[in-house]
Amino acid sequence: MERNVYLTLQSPEEARQLWFTRISERVQEPGSESVPLEKAAHRVLSQPAEALRSSPAFHGAAMDGIAVRAESTFSASPRTPLSLEIGREAFWINTGQPLPKGCDAVIMVEDVRVAEDGKTVITEKAAFPWQHVRKLGEDIVATEILLAPGVEIGAYELGALAAAGVLTPSVFRKAKVAVIPTGSEIVPLAQASEEDLALGKVLPEFNSLVLSTLISDAGGETDLRPITPDDPKALVEAISRAALDGADVVLLIAGSSAGSRDFSAEAIQRLGEVLVHGVAVMPGKPAMLGLVSVEGRTLPVMGAPGYPVSAIIAVEEFLLPLLAFWQKRRPKTRERIDVVPCTPLPSRPGMEERIRVRLGMVDETCFAVPLPRGAGTVTSLSRADAIIPVARDCEGLDANVPVRAELLRSRSQIAGSLLIIGSHDNTLELIDSLLRQVEPRFSLTSAHVGSLGGLLALKRGQCHLAGSHLLDEASGVYNRAAIREHLKGVPVMLVHLAQREQGFVVMPGNPKGIKDVSDLVRDDVTFINRQRGSGTRVLLDYELQRKGIAFGKIRGYRDEEYTHMNVAAAVLSGRADTGLGVRAAACALHLDFVPLGPEEYDLVIPLRFAEDERIQTLLEVIRSQVFRDKVTAMGGYDVSASGEILWTYDGKEA
Amino acid sequence: MERNVYLTLQSPEEARQLWFTRISERVQEPGSESVPLEKAAHRVLSQPAEALRSSPAFHGAAMDGIAVRAESTFSASPRTPLSLEIGREAFWINTGQPLPKGCDAVIMVEDVRVAEDGKTVITEKAAFPWQHVRKLGEDIVATEILLAPGVEIGAYELGALAAAGVLTPSVFRKAKVAVIPTGSEIVPLAQASEEDLALGKVLPEFNSLVLSTLISDAGGETDLRPITPDDPKALVEAISRAALDGADVVLLIAGSSAGSRDFSAEAIQRLGEVLVHGVAVMPGKPAMLGLVSVEGRTLPVMGAPGYPVSAIIAVEEFLLPLLAFWQKRRPKTRERIDVVPCTPLPSRPGMEERIRVRLGMVDETCFAVPLPRGAGTVTSLSRADAIIPVARDCEGLDANVPVRAELLRSRSQIAGSLLIIGSHDNTLELIDSLLRQVEPRFSLTSAHVGSLGGLLALKRGQCHLAGSHLLDEASGVYNRAAIREHLKGVPVMLVHLAQREQGFVVMPGNPKGIKDVSDLVRDDVTFINRQRGSGTRVLLDYELQRKGIAFGKIRGYRDEEYTHMNVAAAVLSGRADTGLGVRAAACALHLDFVPLGPEEYDLVIPLRFAEDERIQTLLEVIRSQVFRDKVTAMGGYDVSASGEILWTYDGKEA
Repeated sequence: MERNVYLTLQSPEEARQLWFTRISERVQEPGSESVPLEKAAHRVLSQPAEALRSSPAFHGAAMDGIAVRAESTFSASPRTPLSLEIGREAFWINTGQPLPKGCDAVIMVEDVRVAEDGKTVITEKAAFPWQHVRKLGEDIVATEILLAPGVEIGAYELGALAAAGVLTPSVFRKAKVAVIPTGSEIVPLAQASEEDLALGKVLPEFNSLVLSTLISDAGGETDLRPITPDDPKALVEAISRAALDGADVVLLIAGSSAGSRDFSAEAIQRLGEVLVHGVAVMPGKPAMLGLVSVEGRTLPVMGAPGYPVSAIIAVEEFLLPLLAFWQKRRPKTRERIDVVPCTPLPSRPGMEERIRVRLGMVDETCFAVPLPRGAGTVTSLSRADAIIPVARDCEGLDANVPVRAELLRSRSQIAGSLLIIGSHDNTLELIDSLLRQVEPRFSLTSAHVGSLGGLLALKRGQCHLAGSHLLDEASGVYNRAAIREHLKGVPVMLVHLAQREQGFVVMPGNPKGIKDVSDLVRDDVTFINRQRGSGTRVLLDYELQRKGIAFGKIRGYRDEEYTHMNVAAAVLSGRADTGLGVRAAACALHLDFVPLGPEEYDLVIPLRFAEDERIQTLLEVIRSQVFRDKVTAMGGYDVSASGEILWTYDGKEA
Repeated sequence: MERNVYLTLQSPEEARQLWFTRISERVQEPGSESVPLEKAAHRVLSQPAEALRSSPAFHGAAMDGIAVRAESTFSASPRTPLSLEIGREAFWINTGQPLPKGCDAVIMVEDVRVAEDGKTVITEKAAFPWQHVRKLGEDIVATEILLAPGVEIGAYELGALAAAGVLTPSVFRKAKVAVIPTGSEIVPLAQASEEDLALGKVLPEFNSLVLSTLISDAGGETDLRPITPDDPKALVEAISRAALDGADVVLLIAGSSAGSRDFSAEAIQRLGEVLVHGVAVMPGKPAMLGLVSVEGRTLPVMGAPGYPVSAIIAVEEFLLPLLAFWQKRRPKTRERIDVVPCTPLPSRPGMEERIRVRLGMVDETCFAVPLPRGAGTVTSLSRADAIIPVARDCEGLDANVPVRAELLRSRSQIAGSLLIIGSHDNTLELIDSLLRQVEPRFSLTSAHVGSLGGLLALKRGQCHLAGSHLLDEASGVYNRAAIREHLKGVPVMLVHLAQREQGFVVMPGNPKGIKDVSDLVRDDVTFINRQRGSGTRVLLDYELQRKGIAFGKIRGYRDEEYTHMNVAAAVLSGRADTGLGVRAAACALHLDFVPLGPEEYDLVIPLRFAEDERIQTLLEVIRSQVFRDKVTAMGGYDVSASGEILWTYDGKEA
């Protein structure tokens, strides 16, 4: 049933076209205005800018020196120096000053000397006509078109307009977007108490801040209206008041419930017409587009979904293009590059998708690692390097087949970034921060797929390094066996990052009295597991095997999380009584910790990158005192050997 | 002598390094501050941003529906529908609300129905644990590092910070740049009377506006100080006051004369030290870098040259990188692409150059046409699509050899632009404006090298179309003979743009009584010519030949300009008494016009582009009524046949 709904939804492109067509027919555009040049930066020209004066406005000196009539100097040469009378044949002049009448050339000050009488200058060089002169209109001739409409006025354009005397250019008026957050449970971000937030009694409202920033970056002006409760009458009033206060377009941000969006539709319908309700794009599906009429004036209205990622994408798909449409320019586009997905990216047929990814440029190929897809995971945007748009008729993207992605960062930022794939460790974000501080060109992008996943990515050449803590059950030694098994043909060095304490994360006071793995099979204990292929999972399974415990008896064994922090969060929330993780994660959330023992977390770095400047800088960072101090403060780490090269693998040895 | 000076100058890179090193040693950095999130957009994080709360902060519904304990629903199926008591086993819940205690799953509202008694809901679907639930910490776990220092806070980052409860992030303080325009002749832009400007009595000061915009775009804050006269004492006072008012760095903008720059050096020396005076970059050479100490506080000072392009490039080379340096981030970089110069680009050895170019993407190659190089031609920046940096040891760039260029526009803007090379006509800028209005993705980039130059560029595949008005002296027919001669192998269509009146541009009232070409040989008449290869030059030579007049007798025959407008400007300024040009140019500058006769200006379009969407839109524009009306208003044009395809050339016919 759900699938049918998607197939009948309009695509974003169709929805946008329908909305824009109706807007063109029925809505008065914001129009244009004249602004003084001092306020014109980043505005968009609405008319061709025609020069009101020439630049230069006169024939002026391009050098400091003397102005002369060129003809009168033709006889000058080193053998026949020429004397010119100051004030009659030669005139001192500074750069930019107008030539005296009758003069058509300037001789540089370096090429003349003043005679002893002080009344004449002597030159050994003939001047050719118009030498060192900036001629009237050399740059700009009055009346010529300087800049086309639709051009954004940046610093350079300000210079051109000023030089041409265009002191009050005609620019598009900024569209005024009334932003109305809706929802009975939401409160302004800064007003919510931590306790109410933690209990979910209130929900913080921050979409308006995020969307206002997108709007102002796109040349609009936000009129932030009060939060309106989920009530059609209140919504009708809020929209009407916004319109009467001069809004060019109204943006309703849904509260947290689908219910409130229905109220939005009802309110829009009472004042006009809902043209689109639901669009075939994820995130962003519940977007709503319509027109309302208030006291005879018709204006567009948009309803954005309440989830932050949906809200952002819906605004980027519809509202920002409307602002551009009104400014007769194309919406700002992102640079596109070909990227290679590291994993298959399934997609729902009938829906366009916007998959957020992190990127790593490895050996000239730009690999993409997907971020979480949820509409509520706003960090999937703040962490993203790019967005891969997936077409509606596509059932998903294959791994290792290049696709187009839209860049959120510059190519040089991507090029300066090291991509680490593998096990998660809390120190990785710290390394990223320190790396950027040491050398702003560099950064560390991490993707967490577990230790084994990291080695496999390294084998496929999809990352610069991997983070791994894979215990060999037979030898009790970390990582070497796994490297021999999975990295044949890829010579690497094994660099020690840290010794860290693994153990059971438990609620403060350890209420369930967890002591070791044997407690996990108890009826009153719910466990939270890590995903297969993670080093922590390997450690658990090793311990279970050692004690002869069948995992089938553990409640929650199949409930998996991907990071230490998410395991700790599961314990904190009561979803589980315990999970295996590093001490730092327990410390971070003020939970208790039952140590199981130390483990070794290492970096696996292909030898072909050993001399890479970024890798060298990374090694410098993890060997630094500041790194050691900060990691020690996190708790449960031993960093005395950080940065030591433990072992070099030639790629052949089995 | 001059060349030696250049060879001893420091490169921009060396100069920057020297300045930054001294600044690191002796200057207190601007530091950081906490700002409320509502004011944090576009600020740069100075510390890693750590999450203060988890997001979600509780297990919440991801859908509207009923919250249940999953275990209690396992028996539900279409054949065995399950009843759940509302308020005990099932709880109505909206998206975003926290799950009631004991619940761990949500069944979507679409999958339940309310029993007739209204007290129970019935579902035919079993729920699995954590179905449709956003788990605590799913996006963000409290204490994790969300964003690294050096990251600019955009809309997405605001969302992540807000979700994580980071309501007052720590950001770098905006460096306060005191901008001091200097020069005795300059006046604030808006205060100059047109007459004084035209006579050169005063020079308008607009560098401060342009540079302030660059500074604020780079995350700095401008403190615009009054214009200071060319006087070392006044300069010392101005710098001191700016420092006492809290400047982090002082930017002196030279007046128009080299003299004032010397005063700058003197003033800096009195207060501290000039580290760099002159840099091996053009434009930008006279830049000055130093440190001053005022009441015990040391701060950097920079002197920018007075010419606008030099000032901009010097600020981009030194001041903006300093702002980035203080924010521990890399300066904003421009995208780089390979471009192919259409003509050789000579360069002065010993100097880096920054050559501004227009670009056209023709058949997958991006061709670059140079703009004027003068330090005063600010339109060389506002018109530029890219800048080609030329290395210091390079004697110039060859035509047709790819070089790296830094893009000023997006790749998609470049891709949407048609490049026309050839003769200049005043209607070309109008076509650009109209084209953008019809379709914001498209634009017309024109480069003026004369009709013949356009045909040769077309032959070399360097442009999309050429503008030409080449009269065949034998037949009296326009363009066809030249096309047959120069475009062998390039099938083209000849599209009529306009009939335009050519004639003599003269001062109002025609004081020299110019009637026809025979007047040009008069002793009291100075002529201004067009460049060789231009259609107007061909026309002149044709007329001279027809009348048997030797060009050697014409005063000014060798003085060439590149556009009709520059010819008109030369007449207006008294540099010449007359020149040959189109009536529109004379009209534009309120000059008189002595008609010589009509001529045909056509567009030459390769057939391989005939179906190109941009060409189709261009043809639509020149066939439109709005184009005809606007061109007619320019004077001297007959546009009744604009857009007509006059002739198709198969590339073979001789």
